This record gives sequence, C-alpha cells and structure tokens, in this order.
Amino acid sequence: MDPRSTADAESRSTHLAERVRDGDPRAIARAMSLVEDDTAAGVELLRALFAHTGRARLIGITGPPGAGKSTLVDRLTREIRNENKRVGVLAVDPTSPFSGGAVLGDRVRMGRHFADSGVFIRSMATRGQLGGLARATTDLAQILDASGVDVVLIETVGVGQGEVDIAKSADVCVVVLAPGSGDEVQALKAGIMEIADLFVVNQSDRDGADHLVQAIMASQSLRPAEPGEWQPPILKTVATTGDGVAALWASIGRFLAQSPSSSTERRRTRHQHRLRELLAHRFLTSLEQALPAGELDKTVDRIAAREVDPYSAADALIARAFSRR
Amino acid sequence: MDPRSTADAESRSTHLAERVRDGDPRAIARAMSLVEDDTAAGVELLRALFAHTGRARLIGITGPPGAGKSTLVDRLTREIRNENKRVGVLAVDPTSPFSGGAVLGDRVRMGRHFADSGVFIRSMATRGQLGGLARATTDLAQILDASGVDVVLIETVGVGQGEVDIAKSADVCVVVLAPGSGDEVQALKAGIMEIADLFVVNQSDRDGADHLVQAIMASQSLRPAEPGEWQPPILKTVATTGDGVAALWASIGRFLAQSPSSSTERRRTRHQHRLRELLAHRFLTSLEQALPAGELDKTVDRIAAREVDPYSAADALIARAFSRR
Repeated sequence: MDPRSTADAESRSTHLAERVRDGDPRAIARAMSLVEDDTAAGVELLRALFAHTGRARLIGITGPPGAGKSTLVDRLTREIRNENKRVGVLAVDPTSPFSGGAVLGDRVRMGRHFADSGVFIRSMATRGQLGGLARATTDLAQILDASGVDVVLIETVGVGQGEVDIAKSADVCVVVLAPGSGDEVQALKAGIMEIADLFVVNQSDRDGADHLVQAIMASQSLRPAEPGEWQPPILKTVATTGDGVAALWASIGRFLAQSPSSSTERRRTRHQHRLRELLAHRFLTSLEQALPAGELDKTVDRIAAREVDPYSAADALIARAFSRR
Repeated sequence: MDPRSTADAESRSTHLAERVRDGDPRAIARAMSLVEDDTAAGVELLRALFAHTGRARLIGITGPPGAGKSTLVDRLTREIRNENKRVGVLAVDPTSPFSGGAVLGDRVRMGRHFADSGVFIRSMATRGQLGGLARATTDLAQILDASGVDVVLIETVGVGQGEVDIAKSADVCVVVLAPGSGDEVQALKAGIMEIADLFVVNQSDRDGADHLVQAIMASQSLRPAEPGEWQPPILKTVATTGDGVAALWASIGRFLAQSPSSSTERRRTRHQHRLRELLAHRFLTSLEQALPAGELDKTVDRIAAREVDPYSAADALIARAFSRR
C-alpha cells in the first residue's frame, strides 16, 4: 500500500475521531457506518476513541413487540434532556435481507428530537453474522459514549437470544410489558423476566394493567433473593401521555446508585465478550491469510462430501496455522 | 490423564455412538445432553457420528409466538409418520437464566407421540453464549440425522437474529402466521417474510385469514423473482383439526424436489458456519492454554481500566500466541 495513503487514512481517522468527540452528529453517523460496515477505518476509529469511553450509562429497554417501547424511549429521552444530559438512542430493528435496510416504522415518532443536538438516534440493522448484532451494538454505544452522551438508550425486541443478551449486558435493564396482549407469557417464554432490573407496565391506563402487575409479582416470587439485594420495582407508565416516566427515570437512577458493583461487573462482562469476539474474528482473518487461497472453501467441500468431519478438519487447520510460524 | 480412562472414554463414546445409530431414544437423549453441555465426550460423539449424517431433511418451522407452531409441528409429525418416516423435533424454547431449564409449555401437547418410537422430541434451552443456539441446533440435528430420522422439524420463535438464522439455514423454511394478532407486522419487523420457502396461514378458520393471505401476497410482490424461480406458496391450515396439513407436507416435498441446488447451498452454508465456529472456539481454547493462567482476565482488567484498547490487546495476544510456537 502507498505509505501516503496509509498516512492519509490515519489522519482522516484521527480527524473523524476528533469530530466524534466534539459531538458532531454527521461525524457520529459516519463513524457508525464505518463500524457497521466492518471496515478497517472503523476499527482504527474505535481504537482511537476507546480511551475516551466509559462515562456513559447504557440503559437497555426491552420487551415484546407492541409494548410501546419506542414511545417510552421517546418520553424517557425528553425526561433526560430536561436535566440537560445528552442522550444517544440505539434502536435494534430487525432487517429485511432483500431490502438491505432497516424496516421503516416507529422511528418516525422520534422526529421531534430531530432539531435537538443533544439527542442522537440510530436504527440498527440486524443483518450479518450470528453474534454480529451484539458486537455492533457495543461498538456503536462506544462511539456515542466517546461523543459525550451521558446516557445510551438501547431499545431491543425482547425476544431472541442475541437481543436478550444485549439488554442484559447494559448497566440497567428495563423490561417493558403492556396489558392485554399476552405479553407476560411471551416474556416468560423469552426468558426476559429474570434479566429485569426494573419492570414497566406500559399502557397502564388499559384494562388488565393490575392483572399484569400481579402476574409480574407472581413470576418474581420464584426468584431467589438475598437480603439487601435490589428488588426489581414494577412501575406503571402511559408512554403516550408521559405519565410515570419521571418516576421511571428516578428509579433507574436509584438502581445505578445502589448497585455500582453490578454495573462494574456487567461492564467487565461486556469487555470480556468483546475481547473474545475480537480474538476469534482476528484469528479467522489471520488464518485465511495464512492458508493458500481457497483452502477453507475446499475444506468445506470435503466436509459436505463427508470426506472429513468438521472437528478433525478444524484441528488440522489450527495445527497448520500454528506450525507455519 | 490415565490412558485407561481415555480408552474407557473412547470405548464408551463408541458404544454410545452405536446406540445412537440404532435409534435408541435414551442414547439419543444422553448424546444430546453431552453436546448441549459442551463436553469433550460430546465432541467425540459428533466426530464419530458425522460420517453417518447427511440423509435427514431439516425443516424449519418459524413464526411469532401464538401462531400455533407447536400444534402444527404436532400435526405435521403425524402426517410424516403416516408415511412411516421417522421424525425428530427440536423445539428451540427460550430459557430462564435462573431456573436453568426450558420453560414448560406447549411441549406437553406433543405427549401423544410419547409411545411412538418413530418420534424423538427435544426442547432446547437458549442459554449460553451468543451464537451458541445455532451451534447447538446444528449439532442436535446431526445426532438425530445419524440416529436415522428422515425429517428433523426445527421449531423456532421467528423473532431474534439467532432464531431467524437457524430457520433460514434449514433445507426448507416454513413461516407460520395466524390472523388477527398483528402477526404480519411482527413478521415484517423480524425480517422473516423474506426467508420463507412456504407460508402457512394457520388458524385459517378465523376472521381475518383472507386479509392475512392478501397481506402476505402484498409483501411478496416486492420480492424480486427470476423466471422459473420457486414462488413461496401460501397454504391455509387449521392445526387444531389438521385441515391443510397434508397439503403442507406435499408442498414441502415439492419444494425439496424442485430446489435441490438451494438445499445443497444451504447445507454448504451450514458446514461453513460450523467450521468457522469450531475454528474460533478451538483457537480461544488453545490460546487460553498457551497463555499464563489468568492472563486473559488480566487483559480484561486492563481494558476495563482503559490502560489498553481491546483492539490492540487482541492483536498483542494473537501475536504472542503465534510466536510461542
């Protein structure tokens, strides 16, 4: 590679990192695209920004479709903005493989924050490899963190292993349910009742809200609790009017204040996952480069033809990769 | 390790593999537990069984909660049994992190197959690492394949990246929706409309079934189609009575007959993913063994303290691992 172009790329990446740190929304959007597209420039950028991360609080907002998460995130954003804090929103929307883009939807409702430079909103596509979603979410949250936001709201559909993993690795995990839609059954099935630090019964002006509160309490009675341990409160909200949202924000604050060790532990877990993913990813890249072109494809063909089993094939490839050095 | 115990383990694993190949349900269940618990014996077993796989067809049944997938799987199982074919069912149920087991539920309905030795049913927990669900599903399907089943039905909730990936990597992907529950919106959001080889409108005796059929047709009109390419049919069923299930099974057969290349391609993709996962998994294990004890933990601590960024730390660990050899 032309050394000038490398130097150029580096200086561009340094320049972009500076603009991200200044909170420039266009730079943030550009940085996120570089990272989502899995580019070398994206990695350089994350590396440059890393020292400036660790300040933002990550709040996971999860629950079944139709629970009103987007509206709640919108109201919560306003509540946090009232304290003059800066907010980033990552909405993990499943994607369409053939449209290639995120499905348009309730993101539109967030339009009212469009002119507010203290709010940055990004819809994420769930395309790509297994585990890619969690990695991309962590990376995008880091960009927001480095850009100076105080709070990152991560909205995920609380169904699906990847999505649940994302929510539970945040500093706080808020599980949102709504009455009358069989939500509690879905939530039980998805295993999200156990990851909640706080429960929200949204649309609590509807019939069945009290029943839902009781169902949540019943599910929690099975949860083993240590004396002095945080008991997930059940908060009622009506996101469409904003009722109860201030109390929710206050309760999130109490959780963060009372459970600093839990937050430290989750941050450590996030770093650990990220390091393991990076190690695996880089090893596979190095391996592909170390092997003759097409070698991995040939191995897959041999596996498909049952000439070799994948376990022996993996062992042989790893042995070859290590012995070459 | 005591060489006798290794030999013992090997002979036990060979013995278990033989019993799996004989279709012994207790051996199959034992083999699945060894694999789900990520044991060395599980790997040995998969290695021994691999040469005997590749015969079974994998049918993904996916859709939002409440669409009636379990009942449909039950009816489809009966339909396939009528042809004297053997059936394995893998139900991917989200799990409870603190109960540690799969949530009890509609599995109970499958009880009628309990005494039928031609049917093997397993509920899977979605515990563990990101991506672990897809890996475990592939492995358990291989065990069923080696045990001589003709068809593996894989039932997943069609929401969540991991679950969608599992469904679309099967030889056939059946997307199940039901009228009147906003399913089509959920399905659109989850990106499952595009992975369907066949659509099922279940509970088609209910109001709104025709509307749902039309909504599916509308969504498909956006799908680019090559001349001669398979057009996903929309089949109506009433799983509770069995109406339409024979037609569904016939249609699945037509898809498999008409699209052999698509099936070959998906099998290749499954092998490719599996090989990459194995390589990454084994590399991490080798790396942990190659490094001084606690080195990875120390690195995570340094990352958490912002003394090093994860990207540089990963590079340094990989360089060390390779240079030691």
